[in-house]
Amino acid sequence: MQNPQPAARQVSRQVSREQLASQAAALLARLRDKAPRVHCITNSVAQNFTANALLALGAIPSMTLSAEEIGAFVARSDALLVNLGTFDSERREATALAVASARQNGLPWVLDPVFVDRAPSRAAYARDLIVLEPKAVRLNVAEFTALAGHEPLPEAVAQTARDWRSVIGLSGATDLITDGARTATIANGHPLMARVTAMGCAASAIVAACLAAEEDAFVATASAMLIVGVAGEHAAAKAEGPGSFAAAILDALYNIGGKTLAALART
Amino acid sequence: MQNPQPAARQVSRQVSREQLASQAAALLARLRDKAPRVHCITNSVAQNFTANALLALGAIPSMTLSAEEIGAFVARSDALLVNLGTFDSERREATALAVASARQNGLPWVLDPVFVDRAPSRAAYARDLIVLEPKAVRLNVAEFTALAGHEPLPEAVAQTARDWRSVIGLSGATDLITDGARTATIANGHPLMARVTAMGCAASAIVAACLAAEEDAFVATASAMLIVGVAGEHAAAKAEGPGSFAAAILDALYNIGGKTLAALART
Amino acid sequence: MQNPQPAARQVSRQVSREQLASQAAALLARLRDKAPRVHCITNSVAQNFTANALLALGAIPSMTLSAEEIGAFVARSDALLVNLGTFDSERREATALAVASARQNGLPWVLDPVFVDRAPSRAAYARDLIVLEPKAVRLNVAEFTALAGHEPLPEAVAQTARDWRSVIGLSGATDLITDGARTATIANGHPLMARVTAMGCAASAIVAACLAAEEDAFVATASAMLIVGVAGEHAAAKAEGPGSFAAAILDALYNIGGKTLAALART
Repeated sequence: MQNPQPAARQVSRQVSREQLASQAAALLARLRDKAPRVHCITNSVAQNFTANALLALGAIPSMTLSAEEIGAFVARSDALLVNLGTFDSERREATALAVASARQNGLPWVLDPVFVDRAPSRAAYARDLIVLEPKAVRLNVAEFTALAGHEPLPEAVAQTARDWRSVIGLSGATDLITDGARTATIANGHPLMARVTAMGCAASAIVAACLAAEEDAFVATASAMLIVGVAGEHAAAKAEGPGSFAAAILDALYNIGGKTLAALART
Repeated sequence: MQNPQPAARQVSRQVSREQLASQAAALLARLRDKAPRVHCITNSVAQNFTANALLALGAIPSMTLSAEEIGAFVARSDALLVNLGTFDSERREATALAVASARQNGLPWVLDPVFVDRAPSRAAYARDLIVLEPKAVRLNVAEFTALAGHEPLPEAVAQTARDWRSVIGLSGATDLITDGARTATIANGHPLMARVTAMGCAASAIVAACLAAEEDAFVATASAMLIVGVAGEHAAAKAEGPGSFAAAILDALYNIGGKTLAALART
Repeated sequence: MQNPQPAARQVSRQVSREQLASQAAALLARLRDKAPRVHCITNSVAQNFTANALLALGAIPSMTLSAEEIGAFVARSDALLVNLGTFDSERREATALAVASARQNGLPWVLDPVFVDRAPSRAAYARDLIVLEPKAVRLNVAEFTALAGHEPLPEAVAQTARDWRSVIGLSGATDLITDGARTATIANGHPLMARVTAMGCAASAIVAACLAAEEDAFVATASAMLIVGVAGEHAAAKAEGPGSFAAAILDALYNIGGKTLAALART
């Protein structure tokens, strides 16, 4: 009897550049046609840019946090974003009501566990939310490490996705997206994206918008991250710094189509 | 005895394109000269863009919501905006204090009943505010229908304006402004305006700024909506998408003058 | 015995244009190398632009106000900004915790006493904070007068700086910076800076970022105000109004270097 081969542990299948780009293009057309409503619980720093990114792409944002009405707003939405950026008692109450409403109404929701590496109370709170099975968790390497307790080696991330029963969208110089069975890498993006506040929050909102237009959460998450990365590259070519870049990426999200995705996608 | 003629029910008089443009130009010059202070109760998504729109036009915004000091801020202002965009207990307390201060000090105030069509508690709250006789109510068709209980046919809107004792500024593909006796239509604007968050909130703040520079609330409201629509068209000609458009409309609000209003106004 | 000469009361020494520009250039290089973390307690109107200004310059902003975690965030930061722009019970609690954490950890902090001239409760609160010895207080003439109880004649400002044991950065057509022993004047800037909301708040955040890269609080404050003024002039040359100016000043903060500072600095 042979020992198990290392290959037997390679459980996630890599998706090709061409498949990613064509799936993203099809999703984007559906999204613009549907104009999904995306309710966002996000920090006050990020609200404006997040709303503008959703509008630029073709989705309709709403942002109320009021306990009296957030359940009604989520029930009439097509997807929900929960972002921990500024984290206070009002947002925690809003989050409990909003996630309950999303689950009751069968709506997809996305968790963006911002800054869980900076304060232990955030990490504990994020873990309680992950148990409620967001369709996708979008986060960076420091945040992943704080939550998962280990470095984001590709197959370890795939295992974490299976454990969490969520698609993981890990942002970095190369993004890694996995549902445990499939893996995509995306090498698009530009350093100026790190010089505009709320760029990651807006990307997570775009994941939510894509989940409203695509049942397959892996395809939705990978498409969203490809669209954002390509838009960033496209915008950087026109920008003279982070101020003009922030405007240019909104223009790019509005104008981007299948041809640009196919031409610029890198894995 | 004859039956009443249909014409007898036509109680509101249509204002001409030329009159609208010349009144708006005169008001704009007065506004820039006076630099009125406008206190804004608005949602956190809209605060930054609203403040920048007021500054671009030549007004001075303030935005505090603190119960301790909002009365003092409103008392030292020239007009007040109440926007229901994100609607929480802090903003409701601030609104009660601010409206009371505006009424005591004889200041004009504007109501923007955002999203009253989405949650019944908002509609009830907005109706309680309308009883306090804002000088103007700026809203869209869905919001009007939710509050008035009927579709916005022109003469029905005029009747509602008389009932509310407020000027109504109804935004849409063609804006309709009426005080019950006079009606103006404005066909300016651009689809990109719907792709920038807080554009309507900023327009309502500009109505408040115009009320601070013009006693006649109908002229103030119609002028404000003309200025915003013309600025939007002017900006769209320079924009490549919603990001560059948001900057361009602020530039337009800063640069616009009587000649542009006269040239571009459409009714 | 002779009477004291007027010269004997001239206690503050004027710093030259060349020294200002070269110190600012050296500081800016260190700041970009260090990428300091700056925690900001600021109003919701200003949060987005303030974060973007810090990112453009090369610092890393954080903005949480949550009582549970603000102490931990400040402890892991390199400097703290306290801005009174919108002033509510949440921000007052956050301020008490944040200033205590900064003092315990030996971190520099900056006070921006926005609108203390508009409501007496703000002025009283700001005076309580000044007793806690911020490294710098950045404010305009109306705010200075409300707090100090006298007009900002240069030597009176120097005396106030000694009384407060803080560097004072007084903004105006010509900025005045003094620690009581040294004085700098900066004549850079542009009227469009007053047409973009949160420009002063962002300038105060940049003072905090500079304090994280320079022990001498006078040099840090003067450098920050020179960088902001020169960036404003540079941006105005490219802008068509306040919308394009807001983007252009972020681009300028990103691109500015020693050559531009040396060429454009005016005292």
